[in-house]
Amino acid sequence: MLNFDFYNPTNILFGKGRIADLGKVVPVNARVLVLYGGGSIKSNGVFDEVMTALAGRSVHEFSGIEPNPSYETLMQAVELVRREKLDFLLAVGGGSVIDGTKFVAAAACFDGDPWAILEKRGRNITQALPFGAILTLPATGSEMNDGSVITRKALQAKMAFSSRLVFPKFSILDPSKTFTLPARQVGNGVVDAFAHVMEQYMTYPVNSPVQDRFAEGLLQTLIEEGPKALANPQDYDVRANIMWCATLALNGLIGAGVPQDWATHMVGHELTALYGLDHAQTLAIVLPGMLRVRKEGKRAKLLQYAARVWNISEGDEDVRIEQAIQRTQDFFEQMGVKTRLSDYQLGAQNIEAILKHLESHRMVTLGEQRDVTLEVSRKVLELSV
Amino acid sequence: MLNFDFYNPTNILFGKGRIADLGKVVPVNARVLVLYGGGSIKSNGVFDEVMTALAGRSVHEFSGIEPNPSYETLMQAVELVRREKLDFLLAVGGGSVIDGTKFVAAAACFDGDPWAILEKRGRNITQALPFGAILTLPATGSEMNDGSVITRKALQAKMAFSSRLVFPKFSILDPSKTFTLPARQVGNGVVDAFAHVMEQYMTYPVNSPVQDRFAEGLLQTLIEEGPKALANPQDYDVRANIMWCATLALNGLIGAGVPQDWATHMVGHELTALYGLDHAQTLAIVLPGMLRVRKEGKRAKLLQYAARVWNISEGDEDVRIEQAIQRTQDFFEQMGVKTRLSDYQLGAQNIEAILKHLESHRMVTLGEQRDVTLEVSRKVLELSV
Repeated sequence: MLNFDFYNPTNILFGKGRIADLGKVVPVNARVLVLYGGGSIKSNGVFDEVMTALAGRSVHEFSGIEPNPSYETLMQAVELVRREKLDFLLAVGGGSVIDGTKFVAAAACFDGDPWAILEKRGRNITQALPFGAILTLPATGSEMNDGSVITRKALQAKMAFSSRLVFPKFSILDPSKTFTLPARQVGNGVVDAFAHVMEQYMTYPVNSPVQDRFAEGLLQTLIEEGPKALANPQDYDVRANIMWCATLALNGLIGAGVPQDWATHMVGHELTALYGLDHAQTLAIVLPGMLRVRKEGKRAKLLQYAARVWNISEGDEDVRIEQAIQRTQDFFEQMGVKTRLSDYQLGAQNIEAILKHLESHRMVTLGEQRDVTLEVSRKVLELSV
Repeated sequence: MLNFDFYNPTNILFGKGRIADLGKVVPVNARVLVLYGGGSIKSNGVFDEVMTALAGRSVHEFSGIEPNPSYETLMQAVELVRREKLDFLLAVGGGSVIDGTKFVAAAACFDGDPWAILEKRGRNITQALPFGAILTLPATGSEMNDGSVITRKALQAKMAFSSRLVFPKFSILDPSKTFTLPARQVGNGVVDAFAHVMEQYMTYPVNSPVQDRFAEGLLQTLIEEGPKALANPQDYDVRANIMWCATLALNGLIGAGVPQDWATHMVGHELTALYGLDHAQTLAIVLPGMLRVRKEGKRAKLLQYAARVWNISEGDEDVRIEQAIQRTQDFFEQMGVKTRLSDYQLGAQNIEAILKHLESHRMVTLGEQRDVTLEVSRKVLELSV
């Protein structure tokens, strides 16, 4: 096992009816900004529940945070916070709204041009406004971690930052609020959580049986529960299990003490920045090829994955590995997330542009062994056409 | 899945050489009290490392915190803290030292007789001194939770309290510091962690596959790694895996959203209070009988446990269940922890006294279904003779 730090102070309030507890976790004298995306929280009743629970507090609203939240949009929220002297943020939505709120929390207190937060990946954050989250879309894990990914449209750049100062103070997770999600978002969320686990699990062995088993437990549960959520959208337990899986997939726990990869995410980010694909779509495209191209470096864990997650333990090693990767790809397709560039009207002709973007963002030695060069990324993308 | 709250702000610093990082997590102007048990930390070098890392701070010492830390001893530490106006506590040791430090942290700030903290089980704590821990004995999980068990010798009473105000600010876990533990403490620690998992796992199904798999992962790992620690005391990875298992066994995670039992612990506490048995010894005595007597209420989970943890999935259900319980008992014995009252010069003649103590502490409807009456506890103890 590798040395590690693990710290996660987010207070999780999980279950049916928990939005009513908002009044206990938002200070009574807070000047609150409620941040959200489109109008779904207004049509499904979440917004009204939030307002009822916040009764007595000064509450402002900021709507229109888009998927892959943009610096341009978020800076408008920063202005509003400063102008109205707001002191508590409440994100109501999925990972994009929470990621965006993390940026607003840090940027509102930042001395100088807040773009520097992204350029320094958060290392220059010295204070941030406190904030909480009400999660309506299980996927990114942002509700219980200190990371955020922001897009600057003008530069076609998707950049990450993190800081212990931007953990949510609390997150409320009510699985019943996910009943009305469109199938596309359900599928995307499950694929996103699955890929998060794989980035921390599918590397090389360091004698970490607990981390391995926790990761495998999350993968198995996502495989079992994901299709049920598509088939029976109103099944509370299925939604609860997916929601808790997605949170645990990226709250620091399964990655503590083990090597991590993240090459799939880095290549995927460029696909979103350039062509606007959903984050999960990019992961579904890139991950299978990434595993195939890097089979040798990941051989031991691929065999363990085949055996423990897919119950494939007989026969030739390479056949087992290919079967496990194919089952992974089939699972993404089963969740309604297409796994080839050509499914999104992209192809070999786009590879050069993607590699150029990777190069311009210095993403030229990715992965747990830092051996995912541009040449490796090219092979991955060629396999994903 | 049941509704739950999960909150755990303890900062974990895990790995070789991490005591050197103490200076980064103890405030530079702190007036520190270092609390410990016997002299082992002086002979194994831990004490010197701690003092080096705290250089420049005002440091006092309090030694002599016993296994099953006593109110009587701890009140002396409270007096020292108040007299010297100390403002930061550092527990160096195992669960007893950390549990004791939690009590000192709360009692030093308590208005009135601190015994009331135990009488109210911690609900009356409104402030506590900040403290950290350096764990030298993986077992109780106290290094990453907000619970504590204190014994009042004069009353032969072992009582628990908890409060979000007594989470350690940080805990340093260096597995190499456990190389020199006596075999008895290694065995006790593994049995204690195992029993903690069972109290949160071995109940009835509530459709919580993630919690189940995490619990099973911890049990499997303890079963694999425990005997290796006895056979090869200097194996770092074995020690690291046991240490992280023991922490995760009782940091709130696997118990979130599921029913919990704890009857074995309640009966065990009386055995320690009356006869001075090690905590883990009492669990090893009580747990097998508890599972046998309550087989019907736990049938579904016992079958799952047999299949997933012990790979027993063929044949008659009752035979499978008995095999799994016997394997559990054999595992405790393999770890050097005896599982019968008679192994400790106790027997049927002691049962009445144990039941009287349970009754006087109102432990008369224990377990996840509140159906462990004194009559049930009697049967359990009779099976454990």
